[in-house]
Amino acid sequence: MDKVRIGVVGIGNMGSAHAKYLAAGDVPNAELTAVCDINPKRLEWARDNLGEHIKLFENAEAMFESKAVDAVIIATPHYDHPPLAISAFKRGLHVLIEKPAGVYTKQVREMNEVAEKSGKVFGIMYNQRTNPVYQKLRDLVKSGELGEIKRINWIITNWYRSQSYYDSGGWRATWAGEGGGVLINQCPHNLDLWQWICGMPRRVRAFCHYGKYHDIEVEDDVTAYMEYENGATGVFITTTGEAPGTNRFEIAGDRGKIVVEEGKLTFWRLRVSERQFNREYKGGFGSPECWKCEIPVHGVETAHRGITTNWVNAILKGTPLLAPGVEGIYGLTISNAMHLSSWLDDWVEIPFDEDLFYQKLKERIDSSKFKKDKKEDKILDVEGTY
Amino acid sequence: MDKVRIGVVGIGNMGSAHAKYLAAGDVPNAELTAVCDINPKRLEWARDNLGEHIKLFENAEAMFESKAVDAVIIATPHYDHPPLAISAFKRGLHVLIEKPAGVYTKQVREMNEVAEKSGKVFGIMYNQRTNPVYQKLRDLVKSGELGEIKRINWIITNWYRSQSYYDSGGWRATWAGEGGGVLINQCPHNLDLWQWICGMPRRVRAFCHYGKYHDIEVEDDVTAYMEYENGATGVFITTTGEAPGTNRFEIAGDRGKIVVEEGKLTFWRLRVSERQFNREYKGGFGSPECWKCEIPVHGVETAHRGITTNWVNAILKGTPLLAPGVEGIYGLTISNAMHLSSWLDDWVEIPFDEDLFYQKLKERIDSSKFKKDKKEDKILDVEGTY
Repeated sequence: MDKVRIGVVGIGNMGSAHAKYLAAGDVPNAELTAVCDINPKRLEWARDNLGEHIKLFENAEAMFESKAVDAVIIATPHYDHPPLAISAFKRGLHVLIEKPAGVYTKQVREMNEVAEKSGKVFGIMYNQRTNPVYQKLRDLVKSGELGEIKRINWIITNWYRSQSYYDSGGWRATWAGEGGGVLINQCPHNLDLWQWICGMPRRVRAFCHYGKYHDIEVEDDVTAYMEYENGATGVFITTTGEAPGTNRFEIAGDRGKIVVEEGKLTFWRLRVSERQFNREYKGGFGSPECWKCEIPVHGVETAHRGITTNWVNAILKGTPLLAPGVEGIYGLTISNAMHLSSWLDDWVEIPFDEDLFYQKLKERIDSSKFKKDKKEDKILDVEGTY
Repeated sequence: MDKVRIGVVGIGNMGSAHAKYLAAGDVPNAELTAVCDINPKRLEWARDNLGEHIKLFENAEAMFESKAVDAVIIATPHYDHPPLAISAFKRGLHVLIEKPAGVYTKQVREMNEVAEKSGKVFGIMYNQRTNPVYQKLRDLVKSGELGEIKRINWIITNWYRSQSYYDSGGWRATWAGEGGGVLINQCPHNLDLWQWICGMPRRVRAFCHYGKYHDIEVEDDVTAYMEYENGATGVFITTTGEAPGTNRFEIAGDRGKIVVEEGKLTFWRLRVSERQFNREYKGGFGSPECWKCEIPVHGVETAHRGITTNWVNAILKGTPLLAPGVEGIYGLTISNAMHLSSWLDDWVEIPFDEDLFYQKLKERIDSSKFKKDKKEDKILDVEGTY
């Protein structure tokens, strides 16, 4: 194969963006050959905007079986990512899914197992991993420059959404349509970066507020406290109800602290590690010598195109994936643990009881104000307007 | 009376500082006439440094009865503030206590009752209330410029202390000697400013770590989550184990957000309130227009001298107190609630069960490694080396 033929499932907000840059030839060695949507208006849009040679499908299964595609990008509502990916893998297709990997880890775990058995290339659209600032932050942590992590703090409250945003789709911000609020819709990138840079916490105690700032049934305000195996603590704060909000990511370690804010990375670096200073210092109120370092950040955030290009190169040349699809479960695990902790009003250890999570989610789905159909599995249908 | 004759009880670190600026005449219409300490070496220091006319006492009661003072500053270890203040009020003296007001609210409540009955002027050394930055922040909140509070976040982790600091006094960082760690020793100012600016939370869920970064029995790392009656949330993070640490106080409200960091106050002000925008906006991803405003801060932080001067003026001229002693209970209530929440591993509603708090504290005092004497009330003695 010298060119990957790509189909896009779901050409709503995100899917149409992927289709457009593929149709424009922005991704080398990739060709958009098909799109799929259950909404006829979206297919009309595709015919008018993507070119007449693009095959149009009303149904994902038909596209998967059409022999018109080698690989698919799945950009449907969240619940449908795992079943569609599983179906595509079973037909021998490579898969790139939009975030989040799914709504509950149980279905994502099943998807990961099928993906691994398939031997196909499985990516996830964690485009924030292409942001040079977060790559640099990860470098400073993983290389040991910061020393062992002591404390993590991410105030990521600049996800402002008005009531009219939520009113724009009946499935939005419902348990049955999305399976959550700010955690599942806005924060998957942040929770992925959190674990990509700092690793997975051991336990979580979260405080979610449901419909606090909007007329919605899911959470729009979250404060979560986390603990790590080494004793490090973390606080993650998010909301869609605050303007202008804040995006400040701070990590304190044995060698100082790093703050990422307004696109800048600053490292307050200790000349000797705090633990060493603590052992050796003999005075009263002293503290380790500290240098304020402005860390250069080079490179360009290649964003969605970058992730798609990397995935295409992985298919054609075996290039390592920047965002392997199987890693989608990590951020979702933190997200699910936060929901579960709030529902139980208690600690949640990781790994948590996935059946209990699903049961508690199901209770909310069953009483959700968004009901496309009485049959539960209908919510897994491709919806296509996202 | 045209001049207030002041005695200082406890001339350790803080008490000697108060004695020195009083002896130097830095506080108008006040005169240092006596000091008291149980440590003979401190009295020798006083004789050599404060002038021969200063009366020296080994015992606070003797000073209170000496007729040599109209008013006293109490700068002993924390446990002793309430019993000494009560004794002074009963002898008709005006009182200014060092922070914290005490170690547990039960004893502080008793002190406040005696103070109010006495009719004497009762102040507390909340010198951070003289900081123009916090005065301005309070002004913006109380005047309604920020709108209703939504979220409070104070990362105050720049209280670094080494093991050698803790080793410098056997009573330091012990349940019997201090009654707590970073919350009771370093944070009383922060917790007072928190409630002075934002009011009292309704409930608290705190996560304290004991001896995490030091060989001590009390907490040196705290993350606390709070909820307010109006739905506002708060996070307070502190530690003595981090260098260089952070001091960043953020308050988000309906009209934007304010951040105090590095002595600067910045107000991101919304042109219309978020609640109004949320109701009226009809588009998709919009958010309210926001202006970044650098708020001028005038005035000088008059610090300890400022509080003492204000208290002297209250005695002589009826000037309103900037930091009334009876308000010491508020910050301590938050501090006690944080401890209790951590001990119970559960929510603590405010007001909490003060007897339960004292019982849990007493269990820790009884097993404390610092034991001056087997008799419980011995811990209430003046120690004089603080």
